[in-house]
Amino acid sequence: MDFVNIAKNAKEASLKIADLPEQVKNEALLKIADAIEAEKDEIFSANSKDLAEAEKLVALGEITKSVFNRLKLDENKMRDMIKGIRDIAALPDPVNRKLLVRELDEGLTLYKVSCPIGVLGIIFEARPDVIAQISSLAIKSANAVILKGGKESINTNKKILRVINSALALVKGFPENVIQQVFTREDVAEMLKCDKYINLIIPRGGNKLVKFIKENTKIPVLGHADGICHIFVDESADLKMAEKIIVDAKTQYPSACNSVETLLIHEKFPYRDELLASLQLSEIKLIDKPESWAFEYGDKILAFKTVKSIDEAIEHINTYGSGHTDCIITGSVENAEKFMNKVDSAGVYRNVSTRFADGFRYGFGAEVGISTNKTHARGPVGLDGLTIYKYKLIGNGQIVKDYADGTKQFHHRDII
Amino acid sequence: MDFVNIAKNAKEASLKIADLPEQVKNEALLKIADAIEAEKDEIFSANSKDLAEAEKLVALGEITKSVFNRLKLDENKMRDMIKGIRDIAALPDPVNRKLLVRELDEGLTLYKVSCPIGVLGIIFEARPDVIAQISSLAIKSANAVILKGGKESINTNKKILRVINSALALVKGFPENVIQQVFTREDVAEMLKCDKYINLIIPRGGNKLVKFIKENTKIPVLGHADGICHIFVDESADLKMAEKIIVDAKTQYPSACNSVETLLIHEKFPYRDELLASLQLSEIKLIDKPESWAFEYGDKILAFKTVKSIDEAIEHINTYGSGHTDCIITGSVENAEKFMNKVDSAGVYRNVSTRFADGFRYGFGAEVGISTNKTHARGPVGLDGLTIYKYKLIGNGQIVKDYADGTKQFHHRDII
Repeated sequence: MDFVNIAKNAKEASLKIADLPEQVKNEALLKIADAIEAEKDEIFSANSKDLAEAEKLVALGEITKSVFNRLKLDENKMRDMIKGIRDIAALPDPVNRKLLVRELDEGLTLYKVSCPIGVLGIIFEARPDVIAQISSLAIKSANAVILKGGKESINTNKKILRVINSALALVKGFPENVIQQVFTREDVAEMLKCDKYINLIIPRGGNKLVKFIKENTKIPVLGHADGICHIFVDESADLKMAEKIIVDAKTQYPSACNSVETLLIHEKFPYRDELLASLQLSEIKLIDKPESWAFEYGDKILAFKTVKSIDEAIEHINTYGSGHTDCIITGSVENAEKFMNKVDSAGVYRNVSTRFADGFRYGFGAEVGISTNKTHARGPVGLDGLTIYKYKLIGNGQIVKDYADGTKQFHHRDII
Repeated sequence: MDFVNIAKNAKEASLKIADLPEQVKNEALLKIADAIEAEKDEIFSANSKDLAEAEKLVALGEITKSVFNRLKLDENKMRDMIKGIRDIAALPDPVNRKLLVRELDEGLTLYKVSCPIGVLGIIFEARPDVIAQISSLAIKSANAVILKGGKESINTNKKILRVINSALALVKGFPENVIQQVFTREDVAEMLKCDKYINLIIPRGGNKLVKFIKENTKIPVLGHADGICHIFVDESADLKMAEKIIVDAKTQYPSACNSVETLLIHEKFPYRDELLASLQLSEIKLIDKPESWAFEYGDKILAFKTVKSIDEAIEHINTYGSGHTDCIITGSVENAEKFMNKVDSAGVYRNVSTRFADGFRYGFGAEVGISTNKTHARGPVGLDGLTIYKYKLIGNGQIVKDYADGTKQFHHRDII
């Protein structure tokens, strides 16, 4: 089928799923979890095919070992994937929430009600478990999705999607074409042009992929290209706390977007040399003259700089950071407040590792990604970020003329 | 000054105004209102210059009489403008609101706090009173703005901006460059490219302007190109109510974006001919074979169509509408609910004129415009639509490793 028809079907599906009762959506999610559990051996076997191909590519140096690892499904990932779907079923319905109820006048009531965005285009790289997570978030938030996974995981992706759609076919009243998949680069090119039917693109993958997508579409894109996170060690920081937080933020998962890349140290912090020595003991390579202060190492490498003041630290972060997550380690509540108000990032932390920037850790159940956008949604994006709202106005024949000529007056009384 | 420097200054100003105390922002707004009141004669005199030029253009047929009217400031508009600024000062601060407070674990608390977006680029056509309104909304929501007005109102715009900035200069602690203005087409071209410093573009003007902007920038654009609003007269509609609402929605201000353009009538509505006759008596020209069902007349012209069912009406609206505001006139609560859930528009109304779609009427105090976007903000956009949020996380040395290896568990307890 050509892409425009797939997109058109997605749009139709999105209008049908928009007002589906909560229990039908939850039944669908539980059926998907059961079906994946029941067919996990077939999914592992599809995954083995992908892994066999990928092994050759690793040997040829065409993909990295870490891509291979992300591609590989194992019992742990499978269990997390299934649990993740059931967790999403248990979350409150993000749709149809009354965000505001305001009586504009006697018998004229305005409701601001959350509703789905419509059609999401999801472009992701190696991790096949993303399909189940994103599909579940889409169903719960009543959006239709078109998924485009990496070619390395094509067999796994196809198999998981077949399992999902077979499960959905058994759910009474659940519309067709809510979850669709495309496979080629040409499909991606069409997706990026398809602003008639697609409302939001969410890329999950490396910096290059995200930049490419942002530069090649007029559809809103939710995500982040870079994760250049900073830790500022203030004058009054506790040495042990600083060591512990920086080691965690740099080494716990160095390729994650919320790992720290640059360390700023106040010149009056008395334990600078001890701190740096201890970081080196934790196998962190320190660089004090990086080629660029806006570089994401994704490895146990940490740029560092001594700054004269908290203001210099804030300015450095607002200049070179990516607006992702930045932390101050300090004993001063006042300095912490200044830092957290003035640093213009999605996450501003006091005395805690940058690695906490994550939808699960924030209690969102799951996330579609982390956004460094300044509009719509920022930081880890869960179900809320997949909704928008509509205004419902209910009256009994009111006309604007009466309010324009002064016959009637608004009283704007909030009920919720 | 070249545009990039103006934008850079705006960015710096946006970081400074971001955490300005509420009382400073309100003092600034009241000072602006006072200054405009004190200098209104000078503003009228600048406006006269623009009007003298515009009169020639009207005579030459280069601008319409309605553009001329929008350009003209009079005592009423001046009074509304000054009152509007004072009203915005009286609204609650949209910034620094706690949207969520969640204890992730003992001593580890997450705050989701509203904050400004950053730098807004506002491109507007003839109405010079927009400057004061937008500047006030920007100050209250702690954003910096770069304004580009229509060339027809250049003298008025310059004068109002001078008055605003002179007033702001007297406010202790208020940063420079929060409100700046540019004048040329080249500046607009630069603005649309300037995604490094500008976070959101808001066009206020005709369909052509908005379409041009949407097609020529990667910066998020908030607004609407078309206002193709529908009224569906259901089988059980009350004839008198239908007449009253349709006349208001078509004639009260026909060039407004929230005026109705297409009337859909259920084939079983028994008073179809009476209704159409009465609309014609109200000087509405009815068209039953329009060239396109997606056309905004902006005049006392109304396309109409008989439909077989509410489903056909919903499908027609979702196909040809612009997602702005659509209304059902019905005696059936069930049909109304179906219509309001299934019509995918920013405003869905029951038994009330589409002309109510407006920030003032919704009680937002003022609006920057009406959005038909499906992300960020939808419908009339007031102060809330000019904010986003950041996540503040406060701990005492917590690291992710402890939660990843099971030493500690999140308890995710909501406080707000």
